[in-house]
Amino acid sequence: MTFPISRFPVPDLEHLPQDIREKILAVQEKAGFVPNVFLTLAHRPDEFRAFFAYHDALMLKTTGNLTKADREMIVTATSAKNNCLYCVVAHGAILRIYAKNPLIADQVAVNHLKADITPRQSAMLDFAIKVCLNSHQVTDADYAVLYQQGFDDEDIWDITAITAFFGLSNRMANVISMRPNEEFFLMGRAPK
Amino acid sequence: MTFPISRFPVPDLEHLPQDIREKILAVQEKAGFVPNVFLTLAHRPDEFRAFFAYHDALMLKTTGNLTKADREMIVTATSAKNNCLYCVVAHGAILRIYAKNPLIADQVAVNHLKADITPRQSAMLDFAIKVCLNSHQVTDADYAVLYQQGFDDEDIWDITAITAFFGLSNRMANVISMRPNEEFFLMGRAPK
Amino acid sequence: MTFPISRFPVPDLEHLPQDIREKILAVQEKAGFVPNVFLTLAHRPDEFRAFFAYHDALMLKTTGNLTKADREMIVTATSAKNNCLYCVVAHGAILRIYAKNPLIADQVAVNHLKADITPRQSAMLDFAIKVCLNSHQVTDADYAVLYQQGFDDEDIWDITAITAFFGLSNRMANVISMRPNEEFFLMGRAPK
Amino acid sequence: MTFPISRFPVPDLEHLPQDIREKILAVQEKAGFVPNVFLTLAHRPDEFRAFFAYHDALMLKTTGNLTKADREMIVTATSAKNNCLYCVVAHGAILRIYAKNPLIADQVAVNHLKADITPRQSAMLDFAIKVCLNSHQVTDADYAVLYQQGFDDEDIWDITAITAFFGLSNRMANVISMRPNEEFFLMGRAPK
Amino acid sequence: MTFPISRFPVPDLEHLPQDIREKILAVQEKAGFVPNVFLTLAHRPDEFRAFFAYHDALMLKTTGNLTKADREMIVTATSAKNNCLYCVVAHGAILRIYAKNPLIADQVAVNHLKADITPRQSAMLDFAIKVCLNSHQVTDADYAVLYQQGFDDEDIWDITAITAFFGLSNRMANVISMRPNEEFFLMGRAPK
Amino acid sequence: MTFPISRFPVPDLEHLPQDIREKILAVQEKAGFVPNVFLTLAHRPDEFRAFFAYHDALMLKTTGNLTKADREMIVTATSAKNNCLYCVVAHGAILRIYAKNPLIADQVAVNHLKADITPRQSAMLDFAIKVCLNSHQVTDADYAVLYQQGFDDEDIWDITAITAFFGLSNRMANVISMRPNEEFFLMGRAPK
Repeated sequence: MTFPISRFPVPDLEHLPQDIREKILAVQEKAGFVPNVFLTLAHRPDEFRAFFAYHDALMLKTTGNLTKADREMIVTATSAKNNCLYCVVAHGAILRIYAKNPLIADQVAVNHLKADITPRQSAMLDFAIKVCLNSHQVTDADYAVLYQQGFDDEDIWDITAITAFFGLSNRMANVISMRPNEEFFLMGRAPK
Repeated sequence: MTFPISRFPVPDLEHLPQDIREKILAVQEKAGFVPNVFLTLAHRPDEFRAFFAYHDALMLKTTGNLTKADREMIVTATSAKNNCLYCVVAHGAILRIYAKNPLIADQVAVNHLKADITPRQSAMLDFAIKVCLNSHQVTDADYAVLYQQGFDDEDIWDITAITAFFGLSNRMANVISMRPNEEFFLMGRAPK
Repeated sequence: MTFPISRFPVPDLEHLPQDIREKILAVQEKAGFVPNVFLTLAHRPDEFRAFFAYHDALMLKTTGNLTKADREMIVTATSAKNNCLYCVVAHGAILRIYAKNPLIADQVAVNHLKADITPRQSAMLDFAIKVCLNSHQVTDADYAVLYQQGFDDEDIWDITAITAFFGLSNRMANVISMRPNEEFFLMGRAPK
Repeated sequence: MTFPISRFPVPDLEHLPQDIREKILAVQEKAGFVPNVFLTLAHRPDEFRAFFAYHDALMLKTTGNLTKADREMIVTATSAKNNCLYCVVAHGAILRIYAKNPLIADQVAVNHLKADITPRQSAMLDFAIKVCLNSHQVTDADYAVLYQQGFDDEDIWDITAITAFFGLSNRMANVISMRPNEEFFLMGRAPK
Repeated sequence: MTFPISRFPVPDLEHLPQDIREKILAVQEKAGFVPNVFLTLAHRPDEFRAFFAYHDALMLKTTGNLTKADREMIVTATSAKNNCLYCVVAHGAILRIYAKNPLIADQVAVNHLKADITPRQSAMLDFAIKVCLNSHQVTDADYAVLYQQGFDDEDIWDITAITAFFGLSNRMANVISMRPNEEFFLMGRAPK
Repeated sequence: MTFPISRFPVPDLEHLPQDIREKILAVQEKAGFVPNVFLTLAHRPDEFRAFFAYHDALMLKTTGNLTKADREMIVTATSAKNNCLYCVVAHGAILRIYAKNPLIADQVAVNHLKADITPRQSAMLDFAIKVCLNSHQVTDADYAVLYQQGFDDEDIWDITAITAFFGLSNRMANVISMRPNEEFFLMGRAPK
């Protein structure tokens, strides 16, 4: 049985603008499959371009103190608060790979307070979850907790922007019923 | 690296009362390992006996219209609302096996409205989640929705009692930091 | 006018299994009437046995630092958060008797911060209410507050298990519309 | 042991302005004791006068379709939502007397859906609780439900104003720790 | 196009009791227009009198440490939490005038943590918002924070009573759909 | 007195990359001032470019059935739910201008149920607020309500994407304390 990957029309690769098709083919080359977020958002090319430009600016950024695993951990924890199936499953998979830890994504998605993470990561997720759920209540005291864990202002911008961007992604995925690729469910789960 | 499976002392098998030791060995024989809920709750033998008598009365019951997969689905969905790592991971694993579906546990844990389940199962989970979060607001109208899906009063007692019992389990697991066995994370995930 | 005590069938004493009938008769002998929780849950004998085995393990336990009044106070406060009429009324009555205080049950049910209780009891109820409503957020800091009030780990298990068990009871009572016996409303209210 | 009835100074009867003293003496004459709301609010004579003028306009009003018991039921149900010990206890007592029903106050305070009330009263309390908790979401549809139960617009104003006024009273009582007189706890509980 | 200012009948000035008509004419004289709260609440003369007696006792009070701007700031912030259009717009206007600050009302209504106010005012609004939303959780610790900012017990009574009174007003305005006069929207916005 | 417009460094126009500087100068030319969102987000040029590309794709889109006023109404209503001062003030100003209605922004920000809008707009805002607060609960039934008001699937994508994008913007603005320009507070308020 096959399931639709979106409530909205999903374009064929060949009918997409060239830049989008090329980006998708590059992802396919690297990952071995095309994550559904690329196909479903390609329904709106201009928004697609902005979405992935934003995504790449935040997630491929090479400066600052957040590791790739830290970033995916933020995405997984906050997407769980937003009950976004696509992002919990897809970014949980990437988190397992970057963290080289087959257990961590489920731990972080259900309750980061029970996860095998450092106090620094736990403070990072406390902050991210506050940004996700009650950003208007963030104050100097929240910044101070992160400073104590070695984060600087630019890191705090990163945590905030990643949380905010995936909050956008979560809402889109929830409303259009974006379906995660089956590949993600198993990825990174084989123990080392 | 090893992690504690409980904040509380975990008894050695050999020092446990015989009936408890035998129950645990039987589980080990069948599952290939001892789920941590048995070891951690054995800290209090009388409560252990009552807990598993209750568990078995609800989950091994052979009458009524709930399948084994239905029951595990209720546990997984409501444990996610209670953010209980142990139960989401352990019962999610059992759900995958009973439902013969490697995707269903993550779907149900994150958002049952996006899960590959029937309208009957969706109504069942709507009811279970209401019992979990706002049981005092359950009225005739909620019963009526389940009747329309073919459930009878005894099924509704089952749904309620399973939700209520695992709400107990979730709170115990959360407060004692019961850790799920690593085996559960991967179980039932290999596609058929 | 008489009211049903449950949405579900209530068995006649004579048709119940002997162990259950004897337990009920013993309660009747002691209390002067049969609390409806016995009759309504007897609809499912196996669950009845597990329920009361669990109940007795927690509430008749003779070790530890929780008094009988402490335990009933936990039940009354958390059952009020779950809006469970049966448990607030029945256990409020028992609380008044154990505490020899005709005012305390209503105080604890409405707002324990305004009750005539000790700081130790207030901390105990703060913890129980957190277990009732947000058990996944319990951390070392919550344990530490109770240690400061003289509670040890086993007491914390007791507080947690009592809260968790009556959370089960509250959900059952709410969904089956378990009606409290009229006797409970007045019990223990006569001033000394 | 005696307990303070307010965090704030409580004036002596003899030092109060004459109109306030007379009002209090009249209440004492009628009730047999002075409810603490009179003594504690007399700390601010001008506010006292406005408070009781408002109270009397709403609660002693002789027109419209709300009975005295209906009004006290609204106060009891909404004060419970605001966790106000004084009002739940004091107005619960008055409700028992007006309704000639020793059980009704506890039922309504814990969960009006389980109370021995009419569908008309249940709709009235649904509306009152919405006004108490989410008044900004009241729409024509909420009015329509009450019309169907025989309430007219003036009754809806009454329900709203009583809820709103006791919301004021609840907040004052909570912040100043107004203590209910012991007399209220037992009043109206003797079965007929 | 004109819009009704209330769901309920609005009396003509000439048919109102003389004391009410005179109060309204006096306000009109001073403000240049009649705020709709006067006309809409005049539907019930006795309640009108009590409402404005209470209002004046709190808002025209000349003792204590709350400035007129402080009081209007409390009204604006808590009315926003109650989503009351009339009070946010009308009292926001008065706040701008008393504070001589065209920006402050919108800041306080949306998020007082981002407003150009003093730490003393911010603590005052924290307290008022707690009284508005969770008055039963106010404890000594909340009083202590205000003492540290120079408030005394009488000021705390004022903050509480203003919040409580406008909570009443918010609920009435929401349910009767009281419409703010257009004049209020622009008042006090011209920069100095 | 001047206030910082961000917790983070705000770049000088002359040190910005040329494309960003030109975009900012073009906005200044058109609006008469530079909205602070441009200056504060220019701290991160790559994110700036993606942010405004996304913004323009959604807000300058010329197809579909949402008017410019509809879009700004969505931004204002949902930003108020997120308590974002910058967006409520800035987009409220733009809403007043597009809708040629000096009252509408405050109405929509406080409670859209009391706003002078059409049933179609009210349904649109109901949906947007659900996407903002509980996107995971959006179902076919929510789509059906919008279809009945004449919206099609592409309009629903627009409503969702605008809500999701400004949810991102709200979180950034809240955490960096982005300050709205004073110009916005008064803009569009002069009656016609």
